[in-house]
Amino acid sequence: MKNVFKDFKKVKYEGPESDNPMAFKYYNPEEKIAGKTMEEHLRFSIAYWHTFADTGEDPFGAGTRVYPWADISDPLERAKAKVEGAFTFMDKLGAPYFCFHDRDVAPEGKTVAESYKNLDTIVDLIEEKMNETGIKLLWGTANMFTNPRFMNGASTSPNADVFAFAAAQVKKAMEVTKKLGGQNYVFWGGREGYETLLNTNMALEQDNLARFLEMAVDYKEKIGFDGQLLIEPKPKEPTKHQYDFDAANVIAFLRKYDLDEHFKVNLEANHATLAGHTFEHELHYARINDMLGSVDANQGDLLLGWDTDQFPTNIYTTTLAMYEILKNNGLGKGGLNFDAKVRRPSFKMKDLFYGHIAGMDAFAKGLKIANKLLEDKVLEDFVAERYASYESGIGKKIVNKEVGLEELAEYAIELGEVENYSGHQEMLEAKLNQYILNN
Amino acid sequence: MKNVFKDFKKVKYEGPESDNPMAFKYYNPEEKIAGKTMEEHLRFSIAYWHTFADTGEDPFGAGTRVYPWADISDPLERAKAKVEGAFTFMDKLGAPYFCFHDRDVAPEGKTVAESYKNLDTIVDLIEEKMNETGIKLLWGTANMFTNPRFMNGASTSPNADVFAFAAAQVKKAMEVTKKLGGQNYVFWGGREGYETLLNTNMALEQDNLARFLEMAVDYKEKIGFDGQLLIEPKPKEPTKHQYDFDAANVIAFLRKYDLDEHFKVNLEANHATLAGHTFEHELHYARINDMLGSVDANQGDLLLGWDTDQFPTNIYTTTLAMYEILKNNGLGKGGLNFDAKVRRPSFKMKDLFYGHIAGMDAFAKGLKIANKLLEDKVLEDFVAERYASYESGIGKKIVNKEVGLEELAEYAIELGEVENYSGHQEMLEAKLNQYILNN
Amino acid sequence: MKNVFKDFKKVKYEGPESDNPMAFKYYNPEEKIAGKTMEEHLRFSIAYWHTFADTGEDPFGAGTRVYPWADISDPLERAKAKVEGAFTFMDKLGAPYFCFHDRDVAPEGKTVAESYKNLDTIVDLIEEKMNETGIKLLWGTANMFTNPRFMNGASTSPNADVFAFAAAQVKKAMEVTKKLGGQNYVFWGGREGYETLLNTNMALEQDNLARFLEMAVDYKEKIGFDGQLLIEPKPKEPTKHQYDFDAANVIAFLRKYDLDEHFKVNLEANHATLAGHTFEHELHYARINDMLGSVDANQGDLLLGWDTDQFPTNIYTTTLAMYEILKNNGLGKGGLNFDAKVRRPSFKMKDLFYGHIAGMDAFAKGLKIANKLLEDKVLEDFVAERYASYESGIGKKIVNKEVGLEELAEYAIELGEVENYSGHQEMLEAKLNQYILNN
Amino acid sequence: MKNVFKDFKKVKYEGPESDNPMAFKYYNPEEKIAGKTMEEHLRFSIAYWHTFADTGEDPFGAGTRVYPWADISDPLERAKAKVEGAFTFMDKLGAPYFCFHDRDVAPEGKTVAESYKNLDTIVDLIEEKMNETGIKLLWGTANMFTNPRFMNGASTSPNADVFAFAAAQVKKAMEVTKKLGGQNYVFWGGREGYETLLNTNMALEQDNLARFLEMAVDYKEKIGFDGQLLIEPKPKEPTKHQYDFDAANVIAFLRKYDLDEHFKVNLEANHATLAGHTFEHELHYARINDMLGSVDANQGDLLLGWDTDQFPTNIYTTTLAMYEILKNNGLGKGGLNFDAKVRRPSFKMKDLFYGHIAGMDAFAKGLKIANKLLEDKVLEDFVAERYASYESGIGKKIVNKEVGLEELAEYAIELGEVENYSGHQEMLEAKLNQYILNN
Ligand SMILES: [Co+2]
Ligand SMILES: [Co+2]
Ligand SMILES: [Co+2]
Ligand SMILES: [Co+2]
Ligand SMILES: [Co+2]
Ligand SMILES: [Co+2]
Ligand SMILES: [Co+2]
Ligand SMILES: [Co+2]
Repeated sequence: MKNVFKDFKKVKYEGPESDNPMAFKYYNPEEKIAGKTMEEHLRFSIAYWHTFADTGEDPFGAGTRVYPWADISDPLERAKAKVEGAFTFMDKLGAPYFCFHDRDVAPEGKTVAESYKNLDTIVDLIEEKMNETGIKLLWGTANMFTNPRFMNGASTSPNADVFAFAAAQVKKAMEVTKKLGGQNYVFWGGREGYETLLNTNMALEQDNLARFLEMAVDYKEKIGFDGQLLIEPKPKEPTKHQYDFDAANVIAFLRKYDLDEHFKVNLEANHATLAGHTFEHELHYARINDMLGSVDANQGDLLLGWDTDQFPTNIYTTTLAMYEILKNNGLGKGGLNFDAKVRRPSFKMKDLFYGHIAGMDAFAKGLKIANKLLEDKVLEDFVAERYASYESGIGKKIVNKEVGLEELAEYAIELGEVENYSGHQEMLEAKLNQYILNN
Repeated sequence: MKNVFKDFKKVKYEGPESDNPMAFKYYNPEEKIAGKTMEEHLRFSIAYWHTFADTGEDPFGAGTRVYPWADISDPLERAKAKVEGAFTFMDKLGAPYFCFHDRDVAPEGKTVAESYKNLDTIVDLIEEKMNETGIKLLWGTANMFTNPRFMNGASTSPNADVFAFAAAQVKKAMEVTKKLGGQNYVFWGGREGYETLLNTNMALEQDNLARFLEMAVDYKEKIGFDGQLLIEPKPKEPTKHQYDFDAANVIAFLRKYDLDEHFKVNLEANHATLAGHTFEHELHYARINDMLGSVDANQGDLLLGWDTDQFPTNIYTTTLAMYEILKNNGLGKGGLNFDAKVRRPSFKMKDLFYGHIAGMDAFAKGLKIANKLLEDKVLEDFVAERYASYESGIGKKIVNKEVGLEELAEYAIELGEVENYSGHQEMLEAKLNQYILNN
Repeated sequence: MKNVFKDFKKVKYEGPESDNPMAFKYYNPEEKIAGKTMEEHLRFSIAYWHTFADTGEDPFGAGTRVYPWADISDPLERAKAKVEGAFTFMDKLGAPYFCFHDRDVAPEGKTVAESYKNLDTIVDLIEEKMNETGIKLLWGTANMFTNPRFMNGASTSPNADVFAFAAAQVKKAMEVTKKLGGQNYVFWGGREGYETLLNTNMALEQDNLARFLEMAVDYKEKIGFDGQLLIEPKPKEPTKHQYDFDAANVIAFLRKYDLDEHFKVNLEANHATLAGHTFEHELHYARINDMLGSVDANQGDLLLGWDTDQFPTNIYTTTLAMYEILKNNGLGKGGLNFDAKVRRPSFKMKDLFYGHIAGMDAFAKGLKIANKLLEDKVLEDFVAERYASYESGIGKKIVNKEVGLEELAEYAIELGEVENYSGHQEMLEAKLNQYILNN
Repeated sequence: MKNVFKDFKKVKYEGPESDNPMAFKYYNPEEKIAGKTMEEHLRFSIAYWHTFADTGEDPFGAGTRVYPWADISDPLERAKAKVEGAFTFMDKLGAPYFCFHDRDVAPEGKTVAESYKNLDTIVDLIEEKMNETGIKLLWGTANMFTNPRFMNGASTSPNADVFAFAAAQVKKAMEVTKKLGGQNYVFWGGREGYETLLNTNMALEQDNLARFLEMAVDYKEKIGFDGQLLIEPKPKEPTKHQYDFDAANVIAFLRKYDLDEHFKVNLEANHATLAGHTFEHELHYARINDMLGSVDANQGDLLLGWDTDQFPTNIYTTTLAMYEILKNNGLGKGGLNFDAKVRRPSFKMKDLFYGHIAGMDAFAKGLKIANKLLEDKVLEDFVAERYASYESGIGKKIVNKEVGLEELAEYAIELGEVENYSGHQEMLEAKLNQYILNN
């Protein structure tokens, strides 16, 4: 393998006027925003699966992207070369974190034992590279959706043997995540759901999902993994209906099984919109439920009905996302993971840089705008005034639970009529535009 | 007013071959299915708002339906005439229940006191008519979305005075529901949500919503109303985003505030599909969470993005809905309420009969097919076999929580590979067709 | 009536840093862009129906907006007061054009004759006001969807009498449009479609629609109206399926009936997205088919399935729309009509200003960015290079139709393999962001 | 290879009560309906790509279906074994036709010449099998979307060399279609569209698409292929926006380039719904435009946003589709091609039978119901009466173009008011249910 990524220069910040497509225009890692550097705020992470394993294949076409290691025929050797290339790329790009599934980094073996061994081999190499480059692991996870055995789900499979295979995989994936200092461990239940209710025992499947997560919590404690456990909601695709439909569905589930203290959510923008929510809605909802763990930073195409996993470039979305994240006092152990892939016709290796640069710049700019909005209390002051009636009088009594329907009915009878305030949505949208365009 | 409904004959069961559009072809109230009459199973209810108050108005056009009482100018007199007409219609149709909002039956007054008085007047008349006809009240509710004061929500309004007005309305609506022997009280939060996050304090709004529901629970106990409290989910429309998005969102909310013991859900088919779920999914999900309370029986158009509230005629949906309801041992105090309206060009009074007959026949047939599916254990046997691996061996240990990730990993290593079973979805779909077409 | 609009100051350009919500930040009418003033480029128009006739009513709630003329009980007097208020508002805002339906400006009478008379009365007053203020008419149209008689369509009604009423209305509306110097006449077929195919003769309906449009063309010529005739596509709502689904559906129809020389399209952003297209797609498609006539400038919410008609504030959309319009050498007789309404909770009169200011600023900024993109040939150069293979060699032969399948097969056999170029979508999206954020 | 299909019995008609999943319940090939056998009416065709080449792979998982020929490593030998298996399957199933892409049947070679040779080899074998079994070719086509060279389109590629490769492929595919007696040749432009307008020259692309189709028409005439040329619309997927969005988009395009006499459309149910139309709408629209050529018989899931290509089992859709087809006097050279695949977890070879049996039975039943509706003139009589006003008086004058806006205005003034008829949609829906459930 010729590690072509070596031929690229390190991506540098050149400022808004730069005409260099290989430079950052807005992401300046050392720049301080509200007391923290951009790098500390944003905690960017590269998704191993998209950036190093996705060839651009789609249901109607073969891959278009030929990685430098593509011609190595031995899977394990290819995986090693991939690590080599991946860390060169990440180093050149300057993202401080990465994320992976077990199967992205190492080939599945013929047996569980062989898969474990393959993974150990590669994880050792990854550890070396992490030490060399200083790149850290944001989260690890197990791919329990690609292998045909998971056709009907992993922990929600009607087949108990499949449940066991899933358990074997999570056990190992959690161990290597711990070994690599991973700060989180993620569960995305791509096939935890059903294709048709006609053949499904949903009650048993959901109970089993809960049992599986309990086992994971137990094992986490047993091995002393101090990372955060995360569930990533998605409403559908590949499965017709997924149990982790959206943040609220996940939280309803966790509360039912008393698991909510052990998990937070990893929210993906494209999954939010597939579920009928804006990304900022999901972030806000998770935040006020104290469940916001981490973020899969991408964007979907709202006119398309599948997960396009595009690089996030919409400045409105990055601004409103960063607004929620700043209100959350950051993401803690979480980060912004680019669960994003370049379009199939963007098949050149430099397109991988272009995609990430586009996303990092969009989030950097979003951070600055969001921070300015917060500094100027543009929205917060408006909101405080809008809800001021709950700070005194009858509103305060409501909040303090000092009144019931009867007292309120008497109050209303007395009052006669209400006076409402305009929501002034259009004015606020214009204000948001002004902050985006002027900052 | 000429009560034109008097000119219609009572709708009778004439059987599948009847060519009479004013007769039931499948709904035979006295026919026994699995030990109960169709009438007892189906508990059909007429929605006062659609059937007696909706004129066919839409955002682009004026009403097309002219009710017999339309020319009575005094609102209270019109409301009385409406009661007269409504009970004649319901009697002719033969549906045993009805549902109403306070504002459907009686005009809102200039003051809360006047509204109360209007409502009392009409409720007395309704009570008379109920006694006369034997028609019963399935549920009552308060309309807290039409009046401009609720432009920003009712209990989630930023304006505490609006919260108080909402409280005054629910207090009274619950009282009259009790007085009329209503079996349920419903909360549909049409404006409990937000138009834009830019001006919204979601945390306070949701806390207030919980406070409001607590007050309702308290008042229910105080007045000794023994009906069931129900929340009706809807994802959006009229509001951009509604908090009661779907059953899971509602349940997550109720569990958070420890309200889940006091409420069940009232599920509407069209709301399910607007939220991205099938109707049977929502029913199934609520059922296994022991939260299935009642049903708004209608259907949407999946190629349209708004709540069309059409009469339910799709035999697949009525069959699968009745399947869930039979598995739930019926709806208890709940019923099948036709939250449905005839299309705007179906402006004749007889179209009101046609719509209900279409829906009642579709559900009656669905009941028979669903019951046959259950009697023959077509799906149940298939499902039992599909999940049999959890009845013994490793599966049983999983269910009994006797194993963890480690034991399962060992088991998987030992096992080598799994053998999966086909889901045979296409065969099951063909079987369902056979049951629909042959029964 | 107290004409409260008089109390507002004229909206002025104060520049990007202004904190005054009643001032333009980007729309500077006199500023020259590529040789024309902003005012000449943008040709902003106010929609009489939304801005002066819409009260915020929705299918679930009564109006929230109380216009100054609301308490005038006589319809014709109210219409006069509305003209008074409308022109004051438009004058204060500084938009050079307006648009109207016959029924927005004058009340429908009991008879056609009375409706004509009412319209004449108000049109005379409008003419006076136009002369006084210098405000011009962009287009007129007839409302053939609100009156119940149009429940099944206007020119596509199954009822020939309805066709005649529609004809009577268009005749008059075209006359008054001419009288007021209107530059276009628009057909939006809100109910020209069907609710269900079960009762529809689509072939006859479409033939009748063509016959109707032919009559309009004839009458236009007869009265010497030199405005442009426009059809506004919309896929659905209020009707389940509308014949003018999107630009291509309209064009297919016009070409079938040899009407394409007489019509262009009036494209609305929200209708584009309801049909599954981006707004810029529809503009581009119409442009290259030489059918781009005028624009209804608004935006939809892609997570909602109905026509929200929001004020256009998305800078991406306004930029890409203006890009198409500049490539089209402007809109000719067309303009940017704000077919947009403030949200229902934005019920204050000043919200009407806020909405328009937000939209005008977003389009002004979009114009500047689009013009810069064109000046710098950012996209044009990229595209030219991407398609360069059609400028010479085999590509040129293809374009010149000098080769067929056989010659091309030989060429391909000879060539061996192709070399593709990356589409570099992510790089272009980043570039677009840079132009938006830096200009 | 063990040709496991040999172990299956021939699928036979056993009637509605049969409990045998491997038998037809409604499809009785020899049964006469309105003078033609079911076989003649339905002209069922098997899609080679789904039934013999699709392994159940999806964007998140590997294939689950292991064909008998899967272990043959040489591609050409595997292709031969596949032919063997395919014809056994088709023979056992009893579908009279099949369809294929060049790449489904024979492996692409390293060069065009090698691809041609591979195709010739396999086509010879197919011809033998066709003669042996009597199975006929409904249509052939060229796969111009899988190979990475088509990443930006085939005839709409920005790269002229790609256009040439596409030409080479169509040339050959048309030749072999002719050789095998194919009755149609289909163009599905899966990548004829764009990913982003930012890098697209739509005008040139559409001109090139037209040039390409002209070449195909020329070549068809040159080689004397007397099949029908068909374009298959699809709005999106894999491409973000496809030019052949729906039937109307295709027709607008064909009319622009004067190609409409040479092409008809091949309509797929799932593509219709992805475009926002019902399947019956697309069929109806194509029919009244005399453009209905053939049908891809499948169904989508309206709650999912991608092409699920499910077997058609919805009896409403098959009934309304057959209704349109009967009104069209059948499909002529076209047929009902099952462009459908079994769900990924239906991975057994017998599931391939189950899927087709489900689809064939649903269409057979749909045919019977549609024919009964037509025989009884249920809808036709209703429609005739609904539009009767165009048969005489003013309506007839409109149809005969004897009146213009002025005459109609006079007529309307005279008339005073219209009287409308109800559309009785609910009654018609109930009637449709009755026909479905009783026939
Ligand atoms: Co993700
Ligand atoms: Co995703
Ligand atoms: Co409802
Ligand atoms: Co509804
Ligand atoms: Co418009
Ligand atoms: Co609109
Ligand atoms: Co197809
Ligand atoms: Co398809």
